[in-house]
Amino acid sequence: MTKFVYLFNEGNSHMRDLLGGKGANLAEMTNIGLPVPFGFTITTEACNDYYSNGKKISDAVETQMEEALLKLEEKTGKKLGGNENPLLVSVRSGSVFSMPGMMDTVLNLGMNDETVEAVAKLTGNPRFAYDSYRRFIQMFSDVVLGIEVYHFEHLLEQTREQKGYTADPEMTAEDWKDIIAGYKKIVKKHTKQDFPQDPKTQLYLAVNAVFDSWNNQRAIVYRRLNKIPDHLGTAVNIQSMVFGNMGDDSGTGVAFTRNPSTGERVLYGEYLINAQGEDVVAGIRTPQPIQVLAKDMPEVYRQFVKTSKLLEEHYQDMQDIEFTVERGKLYLLQTRNGKRTAQAAIRIAVEMVKEGILDKKTALLRVDPDQMNQLLHRRIDGSATKNHLAKGLPASPGAATGTVVFDADEAERLGKEGEKVILVRPETTPDDIHGIVASQAVVTSRGGMTSHAAVVARGMGKACICGCESMKIDLKAKQFTVGDTVVRYGDVITIDGSTGEVMLGEVPMIDPELSGEFKTLLEWADEVRDLGVRANADNPTDAKKSLEFGADGIGLCRTEHMFMDIKRVPIVQEMILAETLEEREKALDKLLPMQQGDFEGIFEEMAGHPVTIRLLDPPMHEFLPDKEELLVEVTKLQLTAPESKELEEKEYLLKKVQHLAEFNPMLGHRGCRLGVIFPEIYEMQVKAIFYAAAAVLQKGIKVQPEIMIPLVGHVNELKRMRALVTDMANQVMEEKGLKFDYTVGTMIEIPRAALTADQIAEEADFFSFGTNDLTQTTFGFSRDDAEGKFLQQYIEQKVLPENPFAVLDQEGVGKLVETGVKLGRQTKPGLKTGICGEHGGEKSSIEFCYKTGLNYVSCSPYRVPLARLAAAQATIRNKKEDTDKVTVAAK
Amino acid sequence: MTKFVYLFNEGNSHMRDLLGGKGANLAEMTNIGLPVPFGFTITTEACNDYYSNGKKISDAVETQMEEALLKLEEKTGKKLGGNENPLLVSVRSGSVFSMPGMMDTVLNLGMNDETVEAVAKLTGNPRFAYDSYRRFIQMFSDVVLGIEVYHFEHLLEQTREQKGYTADPEMTAEDWKDIIAGYKKIVKKHTKQDFPQDPKTQLYLAVNAVFDSWNNQRAIVYRRLNKIPDHLGTAVNIQSMVFGNMGDDSGTGVAFTRNPSTGERVLYGEYLINAQGEDVVAGIRTPQPIQVLAKDMPEVYRQFVKTSKLLEEHYQDMQDIEFTVERGKLYLLQTRNGKRTAQAAIRIAVEMVKEGILDKKTALLRVDPDQMNQLLHRRIDGSATKNHLAKGLPASPGAATGTVVFDADEAERLGKEGEKVILVRPETTPDDIHGIVASQAVVTSRGGMTSHAAVVARGMGKACICGCESMKIDLKAKQFTVGDTVVRYGDVITIDGSTGEVMLGEVPMIDPELSGEFKTLLEWADEVRDLGVRANADNPTDAKKSLEFGADGIGLCRTEHMFMDIKRVPIVQEMILAETLEEREKALDKLLPMQQGDFEGIFEEMAGHPVTIRLLDPPMHEFLPDKEELLVEVTKLQLTAPESKELEEKEYLLKKVQHLAEFNPMLGHRGCRLGVIFPEIYEMQVKAIFYAAAAVLQKGIKVQPEIMIPLVGHVNELKRMRALVTDMANQVMEEKGLKFDYTVGTMIEIPRAALTADQIAEEADFFSFGTNDLTQTTFGFSRDDAEGKFLQQYIEQKVLPENPFAVLDQEGVGKLVETGVKLGRQTKPGLKTGICGEHGGEKSSIEFCYKTGLNYVSCSPYRVPLARLAAAQATIRNKKEDTDKVTVAAK
Repeated sequence: MTKFVYLFNEGNSHMRDLLGGKGANLAEMTNIGLPVPFGFTITTEACNDYYSNGKKISDAVETQMEEALLKLEEKTGKKLGGNENPLLVSVRSGSVFSMPGMMDTVLNLGMNDETVEAVAKLTGNPRFAYDSYRRFIQMFSDVVLGIEVYHFEHLLEQTREQKGYTADPEMTAEDWKDIIAGYKKIVKKHTKQDFPQDPKTQLYLAVNAVFDSWNNQRAIVYRRLNKIPDHLGTAVNIQSMVFGNMGDDSGTGVAFTRNPSTGERVLYGEYLINAQGEDVVAGIRTPQPIQVLAKDMPEVYRQFVKTSKLLEEHYQDMQDIEFTVERGKLYLLQTRNGKRTAQAAIRIAVEMVKEGILDKKTALLRVDPDQMNQLLHRRIDGSATKNHLAKGLPASPGAATGTVVFDADEAERLGKEGEKVILVRPETTPDDIHGIVASQAVVTSRGGMTSHAAVVARGMGKACICGCESMKIDLKAKQFTVGDTVVRYGDVITIDGSTGEVMLGEVPMIDPELSGEFKTLLEWADEVRDLGVRANADNPTDAKKSLEFGADGIGLCRTEHMFMDIKRVPIVQEMILAETLEEREKALDKLLPMQQGDFEGIFEEMAGHPVTIRLLDPPMHEFLPDKEELLVEVTKLQLTAPESKELEEKEYLLKKVQHLAEFNPMLGHRGCRLGVIFPEIYEMQVKAIFYAAAAVLQKGIKVQPEIMIPLVGHVNELKRMRALVTDMANQVMEEKGLKFDYTVGTMIEIPRAALTADQIAEEADFFSFGTNDLTQTTFGFSRDDAEGKFLQQYIEQKVLPENPFAVLDQEGVGKLVETGVKLGRQTKPGLKTGICGEHGGEKSSIEFCYKTGLNYVSCSPYRVPLARLAAAQATIRNKKEDTDKVTVAAK
Repeated sequence: MTKFVYLFNEGNSHMRDLLGGKGANLAEMTNIGLPVPFGFTITTEACNDYYSNGKKISDAVETQMEEALLKLEEKTGKKLGGNENPLLVSVRSGSVFSMPGMMDTVLNLGMNDETVEAVAKLTGNPRFAYDSYRRFIQMFSDVVLGIEVYHFEHLLEQTREQKGYTADPEMTAEDWKDIIAGYKKIVKKHTKQDFPQDPKTQLYLAVNAVFDSWNNQRAIVYRRLNKIPDHLGTAVNIQSMVFGNMGDDSGTGVAFTRNPSTGERVLYGEYLINAQGEDVVAGIRTPQPIQVLAKDMPEVYRQFVKTSKLLEEHYQDMQDIEFTVERGKLYLLQTRNGKRTAQAAIRIAVEMVKEGILDKKTALLRVDPDQMNQLLHRRIDGSATKNHLAKGLPASPGAATGTVVFDADEAERLGKEGEKVILVRPETTPDDIHGIVASQAVVTSRGGMTSHAAVVARGMGKACICGCESMKIDLKAKQFTVGDTVVRYGDVITIDGSTGEVMLGEVPMIDPELSGEFKTLLEWADEVRDLGVRANADNPTDAKKSLEFGADGIGLCRTEHMFMDIKRVPIVQEMILAETLEEREKALDKLLPMQQGDFEGIFEEMAGHPVTIRLLDPPMHEFLPDKEELLVEVTKLQLTAPESKELEEKEYLLKKVQHLAEFNPMLGHRGCRLGVIFPEIYEMQVKAIFYAAAAVLQKGIKVQPEIMIPLVGHVNELKRMRALVTDMANQVMEEKGLKFDYTVGTMIEIPRAALTADQIAEEADFFSFGTNDLTQTTFGFSRDDAEGKFLQQYIEQKVLPENPFAVLDQEGVGKLVETGVKLGRQTKPGLKTGICGEHGGEKSSIEFCYKTGLNYVSCSPYRVPLARLAAAQATIRNKKEDTDKVTVAAK
C-alpha cells in the first residue's frame, strides 16, 4: 500500500518531491539528532489522491494519519484534546517549491474549551492560555473557515476602547474569555455552525484547507508565472507545539552560533525563563544573555552548545537559532544561516576553513564582495542618530564630516591650516582640483555620476555626492538652502557618499578595519582566480595604493588628470589656444617634462608591473573656462567697461571657447580624434612616457608600459597612432641608447570598434573595453543627462532592471563585448583583453568578464579587494577544468 | 608545336588568358569586321617561355614572330624598315588583368634615319616626320632603354629658349632634325651604343622590355596587393600605325554614335582632312562636323556609319570613337563607351530598348542614379562664368539666386511681395521657419548636415548651404564678409546646394527637365524592383509630391516639424514649461486639433497608401529660446533694469531653459524617453492620429497609419508605448463607433535596439532603421560636431573611406542593420523592415538594404526617383531567382 504519511524520523532531505521542502528539512534535522519538536508529514501524493478522490481524504490516508498521530502522542507524552497534558500542533503547507500563494500556517491546533483550561493550569498562566485560544480561533477562522479577519479585529478594538486600554498587554484573562465568546458568535454567524470543539475535526478541516489551497487562484497564477507543474501537489506538516512558559524549568530564546558583529566564535544571544516568544517581543521583561543559561540550566546549556556545533557542521555556516525549553527539554524551533556584518562574514569564513568545516573555495563564496567593500571606507555608525538634510547621487563611497566651504581656494587655505572641510559647489571644474585635494569630500548640486567632481573624487578615493538638486547654492551669500534650512559657510555637515545622504552636524563614524582574516581571504582569492585585477590609477600615490590593495598592475592611467593640476592648466590652455603649430609645440615642450615626471613616479612605484597609459581623451574645451560664465562676464564688461583691455581679452577668449564648443561633446572631437588631427599632442605624451621609461630603467627598475589609444572606431585611426608611437619609441631608444619593451593597444568603447574588432586587432597588442562609454553609445544615453532626467524613473518603473552604468548590461553592451573578444581573437588568438570601465569593480559584471574570457578587470584602487574576491568567485563558479580556454596571458 | 603568336584574325574575346585583355579585344573587333589596324599578339605563354629560357626569346617564338610580321607586311602593303612605304608599329603590353605597374606603349616603332625620310615624302610633311621620329626616340629610350625622360626634355627646353620659342608648334623641321641629333647623343652617352637603327632590333628590344616589365618592382607589388598570380605572364601586342596626314584622301577625327548632350540618335563629332590627332589638339586648324565627311569622302562616311552601328550593336552602348582615314581607308583607333549627360543617358537607354539593342534590365543598369538625380533640381548652367565667393557644406541640393536677407520676418515680408530672397543666418531655429518657407534658399555660417536649417530645407526641397564658416555675419550691420568682400542686405548672390558654392551676383540656371523617357525608365524600374521606395514627408504638400515622384507610401512622417510652425511654438512652449500635469494637458488639448488637421491632410493626400508616423523625437529644449541669448539678455537687464517685470520673466524662463539643458542632447531625454516620462504627450499625438484616421475614413478614403516609436533601446520601452497606442486606438474607435487598422513599430536607431532585436520584435509590427542616429551612436560621432571639427580631414586623409552619414558604413553600422533584421525575423519571420535615414536615398546604401532583405527604403521626396532606379538596379544585380527569400510584404 502507498505510504502517505511519514513521521519526521522516517524521511530525509532527498525526499523533497514527496515531503515538500519543509517536510524534507524537518526530517533531515530530526535524523541528524537535532531536538526538533516531533511530528509527521502527509505527502504530496496524498494531495493528488485527495483531488482524484473528489476532494476527500481517502480511508487509506486517514488510517495512516491516525497511526502517525498515535505515535506522536506516544513520543510527546501528550494527547490531542487531552485535558491533562493536551497535545497542540501546528499545521503547515509545504510544496516542493516555495509558493507564497498558498495557505501558510495554523498554530495551537487542538485548543478547545477544555484543553485551554489544561494549558492554563500547566503554565500557571490563564491569561496566556486564553490569549492562545483566541489567537487559534482567529487564525483557524481566517485560514480554514475563510472568515475575513477584520470581523475579529473589529471586536477586539471595540473591547479595548470600552475598557480604555491602549494595547493588548493590558487585557486580562477575563477580557480574553469575553473575546473568545464573541469570536465564537462571529464564527456561528458566518458558518451557521459552532466553532469546532473536536481537535480531530479541527485537524481534518485544516488538512483539507491546505490541500484546497493548492488550487486557489493566487497559487494557480503563481505556478503559471513560475512554470511550476500543477501535478506536484503540496504536502502537509503536522508538528507538536512546545511551550516555554511551563515554569522555571522552561524558557525561550534566540542565539547566533558566532558573534554576528565581530565573527568571534562564541554563542551570542539572549533568552527568558518561563516565557513564550511573544514575551520577548512585548519587551516587558528584559532577556538574559545566553551565557546565563549555563548557570540557570547547565544541562540544557550543554545540550544547546552541542546542538549549535552540530548545526554549524551540518549547514557549514553560522546559524541563527530560535529555541524553546519545555520542562527542561530543549527544542529547536527554527534555524537559518545568520545575517552578519562584513567583518564577521570574513572572520567566520576564514576561521571555518581553519576549523576544517569549510574548504577555501566554499569560504570564498561565503563573503559578498559588495559587503566586504564597506570595510574599505569610513562609514557612518549605523547606531548613530542622524539629522537628515538632503539626498543626491552616491557618486563616490565613504563618509566624511567637515565645515562647509564654497570655494576651492578657501578649501585649500583652511585645509592647509588643518581644518576638515567639505567643498560644496554647483559643479566643479579643473580649476577646483586643489580645493578637492584639500577637502574631506565634495558635494555638488548639479552633474551626474561621471561629472568632473565624481570622477576626480572616485580617483582620489574621497567621498562625493553629486546632483543634489534640492540644495539651492548661493555662492555670493556663501550659503545653501534645503527647503527652509539654511546652511552657512563654516557650518558642519556630514555626508555619506555610499548613499548620497547629506546630514546636519557631526555624525559618529567607523574607521575601516583591515583584519588579518581579510588579508588571508584575499590571498586565497588570488590563489584561485583566473582573472587578473588591475587598478585605475593616475598618479604615484594611487599607484602605491593599488599595489597595497593587491592589484596586478595598472589597467588605466588617465593622462588628462595630469593636465588638470592647477599649475599646469595655464600651460594646457596656452597649448589649446595656440594659433599656429609652433605656438602649440612651444606649450607642449613645457608640458613634456611635467608629464615625464608623472610617469617616472608611477613607473617607480609599480616596479615592473604593467602600466596601461591612455593618451589624452577628453575634448579640449574641458580645460578652458566655462563658456556661459565668460558670456556673462563679457556682457557685463560691454556695458560697464566697453573700452577696457579686460573686455578685449575676454572677448577673444570667449570666441575661442565658442569655437571649440560642441553640441554633444561626448560624441565630439576627443580621444584618438585629437591624436589624428593634432599628432603633436600625442607625440609629446608618448615621448614623455618613453623618456620616463628610459630614466627609470637606468635606475635599474623594470618598466612595462602599455600605450592605449582611446576611442578608436576604425582600424585606420589605430594604424596611424600605432605608427606614431613606434616612431617615438625608436627615436627615444636611439637618443638614450637603450632598448625597452612596450605594447600598443586600444580602448574598445564605441560600438563600431567592437563590431570591427577583427580588423582593429591587426593593429592592437591588447584591447581594453571601456564599458562606461560603450554603455553610453550602445544605449544612446548621455550618463550626465540620463541620471538627472529619466534614468532614475526608468529603474523605479522597471523599464530597466538596473542602472546600466553600475551593472553591465549583458544583453546589449555585453553582446558587443563578446563580439569584440571573439572577433579580436579570431585575428590574434592570444589577444590580451581587459575591461576598465566602472563595471570592472562590480561583482556581476566581473563574473561576466570572466565568462567572456577577458584576461583582467581594472577598477578604482579602493575596489581592488572587492574585484579580487569577485574574480575568485567567478572562477570557482564557472571554471571548466578541461576546456581549451585561452590561457590568461597576464593577470 | 605550341602556337605563341596569333594574328588579330586568329583570336577571339574568350582567349584573355592567352592573349591578355587587350589582345583578346583587338582580335574580337577584327573578327566582327571592324576596320582595326592589323597586327598580332605574342601570347602570355611566350612570356613564361621567355622566363624559363633564361630571359631570352626562344627560337620557336622568334620564328612565329617573323611569320606573323610577314603576314602583317603582306596585309598592309608596307614593310618594316622599308624606305618607300615603311611599316611603323606600336608595341603594347597586355596582361590578363589590367596592371598599371607595367610597361605601357611604344609608338612609331620602325622609325630610323631612312624611314623618316620616306614618311616625310609620303605625308609631304617633313616637320611631322621628324617630330614623330624624335618622339619615338624619346619614348623608346624611356621605356625600353631605361634612360630618364628629363635628359631629353632638358635639351628640348634649351633649344626652345635659344630659338626664342614659347611652344613646340613653332619648331620647324630643321629644328627637329637638330633635336634628333642631340637625342642620339644622349642615348650614346647613357647606353655607350648608338640608337638602334635596325627596326627588327628595335622590335625585339621592345618585346624583351615588355616581358621584363612583368617582373619590375611596381608590377610585383601591384600583383601582391591585388592577389594576381605571378605565373600569368603578359602578352605583347604589335599593331601597325596608320596616318591621317597622307593627303586629301586621309584624315582623322572623333565621333560619338549619338549626341552625348541630348541622347539624340545622330552621329556627333568632328574631323580634319589630311591631319593627325595632334593637329586637332594643337587647335591650329578648325575641325569640320562629322557630317561634312559625307560630302568629302562619301564612301568612307558610309563605312563609318555602318561601323558605328556595328559597334553599338556589339557593345550595346553609345560609343566614343577615334578614327583615322589613311589614303581613303577607314581605321578605328579606339572605341569606348561614351560619356554623356544624365538626360542623354536616359534617352539612349530607353531608345536602345525600343530599337531592340538592349533589354529593359540592361537599360536600367545603364543610368547612374546619382547622375539622374541632377535632373530633379534647378542647376547652375555648366557653361556660365561664376564669381566664386565662399564654400560651405552642401546641405540640400539645388541652385538658387536671390537678394540677401538676414532676418526671417524680412524674408517673409519680401517673399510675399514676390521678391526672390536667400536667407543668411549664423544658424536657424524653429522661429525662422516662416522665413525659410518664403526664401529660395538658406545659407548658415554654423551647423552641419543635420542642423535645423539643413533638415528643414531638405524636407522642403529647398537649396541649402550650412557651416559656411568663412562667412562672417554681422546681423546688426546687416552684412556679411568673406575675406575682403562685403555683401550687404539686398545684394544678389547665387548658391549651389549640391556643391556648397556661394557666388556673387546672378548665374544662369537650367530648369529640371522630366522627359518622357525619364518616366518610362522609372516605370520599368518599378516593374523590376523588389524593394519598396517610400518618402519622408511631414505635411500634405510633401505627401502630394511624394506620390508624384512615385513613392509607395510615407516611410517617415516627423511629427516635431508640425510643432515648429510659428503659430504653434508658443503653445508648445506652454506645454513644456507647464509646472503641473493639468497645465501640460491644457496646452496639449490646444495642440491636439492642430495635429489632427495635419494628419487629416496627409491621410487624404496619401489615399490609402501606408503612412509611418513617428511620435515626438527631439529633446524639448529644442522648442525653447536659445539659452545663451537668454543669458545675455538677463545679464543686461540685471544691470539696466534690475527691478523690471521683464527681468523677472526672463529669469524664470532662463531657469527653465537651464533646467532642461543637456550636456549631450543627442543622447539625452528624447525619443520614447519623453513618451515614458510624459505619457500625456504621446497620448495627445496618438489621439490626433486616430481622430484624423476616423475623420478621413468617414469621407470614404482609406487610411493605413503605422505608428512608429522612436529611440527604443529596451523592449520594455516599446511594450509600454505599444500599450499606450492600443489604449488610445480602442478609445477612439469606441468614441467614433468605427474600426480602423493600424500597426505599431519602432525605429532601430541605437545599437542596443539592433543587438536585442529578437526581444524588441515581440512588441513590434515593423522595424525602421534610423541610420542617421545609428551612425552617430555606432561611430560615437555627433554629426553636427564631427562635420565641422574632424570628419572632413578624416576623409581627406583617408582615415575613413567615405562620409558615413552620406554612404552607409556597411562594415560597422551595416553589421548592426543585418543583426537587427536577422534577430527580428528570428522572432517574427514576416517582420516588415525598412530604412528611413538619409542613406535611404543613396545608391550603394540602397543596394545594401536590398541585400540585407529590407522591405523598403524611405528618403526625401526629391530622391524618390533616384531610389526607384537604384532599387531596380539592386534587384537586377542581386536577385536570386529560386531562393526562399522573404516575400516583400509591402512596397
